[in-house]
Amino acid sequence: MTEADKAERHRQRMQRKKAVVDAGIERATEERGLLLVNTGNGKGKSSAAFGLLARALGHGMKVGVAQFIKSRTDTGEEAFFSKQPGVEWHVLGEGFTWETQNLERDIATAQQGWAVARRMLADASLGLVVLDELTYLLKYGWLDTQAVLADIAARPPMQHVVVTGRAAPPALIEAADTVTEMNEIKHAYRAGVKAQKGMDL
Amino acid sequence: MTEADKAERHRQRMQRKKAVVDAGIERATEERGLLLVNTGNGKGKSSAAFGLLARALGHGMKVGVAQFIKSRTDTGEEAFFSKQPGVEWHVLGEGFTWETQNLERDIATAQQGWAVARRMLADASLGLVVLDELTYLLKYGWLDTQAVLADIAARPPMQHVVVTGRAAPPALIEAADTVTEMNEIKHAYRAGVKAQKGMDL
Repeated sequence: MTEADKAERHRQRMQRKKAVVDAGIERATEERGLLLVNTGNGKGKSSAAFGLLARALGHGMKVGVAQFIKSRTDTGEEAFFSKQPGVEWHVLGEGFTWETQNLERDIATAQQGWAVARRMLADASLGLVVLDELTYLLKYGWLDTQAVLADIAARPPMQHVVVTGRAAPPALIEAADTVTEMNEIKHAYRAGVKAQKGMDL
Repeated sequence: MTEADKAERHRQRMQRKKAVVDAGIERATEERGLLLVNTGNGKGKSSAAFGLLARALGHGMKVGVAQFIKSRTDTGEEAFFSKQPGVEWHVLGEGFTWETQNLERDIATAQQGWAVARRMLADASLGLVVLDELTYLLKYGWLDTQAVLADIAARPPMQHVVVTGRAAPPALIEAADTVTEMNEIKHAYRAGVKAQKGMDL
């Protein structure tokens, strides 16, 4: 086969592939606010949500963030986003339950945090709301999963919501439109590398 | 068991867990530039890289981005990040190979794009370089994987690099410090929802 034949064969194969891809794009016509879930034990659940914040802000949307576990306010993401116009940023946690060692206080903190999230889920001016590390509050039973899902379902129709955290409960996965499981294949931490600025915080 | 006993038992269990977590954190002491790979067929590979850009910028680092497949320059991420101080943003692609339908041109485009990436990989002022959708150029054979890995390995010691895209080749996974496989559990696109601003572009 000559080079010209090869190029022509490639062109024809790619033309057929393009027809398949384009037909798929044509079938997808609906526009509405989506519920995304980023779960699994790998890196990237929260950072993928932060990347969507950037996308949304780039299109002139307003966005809101609730961080449910984190108590530190010196993270790169907060320093960066909280000074951008159109961003509401709430750090609502007191650390993981092995930090507080006080279950009653954990539950009270979670419920106060959810009140802040509910307000954002009722605010149609927000095009995207990130509920970072929410899954832990469901897993530990600090919040009722059905009540949380009802609040999410009652949001404005064009508002996107992203929930992050390990061990997303089945009812949340069922309710979601798009679910990604971030699986750890390798992690530098296991090779003795500490959490570093710009990578992990 | 009384409520007070339960609270005490929880406290003791969490105290033990905290000791395990803290010991792990103490063992991880190394600081260096990492090579991250976000692969798999799910949503979040590129957006997780964009989230790290925000983190790095929040710590005052400078960052660089090369987008190897994308040709459109109307994405939210580009609109948002390219106007931030400290960001170098390059859109280097001409679309997937089924769009161009011209293998020779694909290869030339890839090699021109890699020259731009190499310049960033030699620039110690950049704390983080994102090589978005690079895996496709390796998979299609438009770039030589060993040559690309040599350029990445020769970068400044504190520079972090993130490579995104499906089907990361084994040699890239081997070379990486942290690898996450983003697996699709569900995707709204399959239910007929089109790509939307702030979510997909």
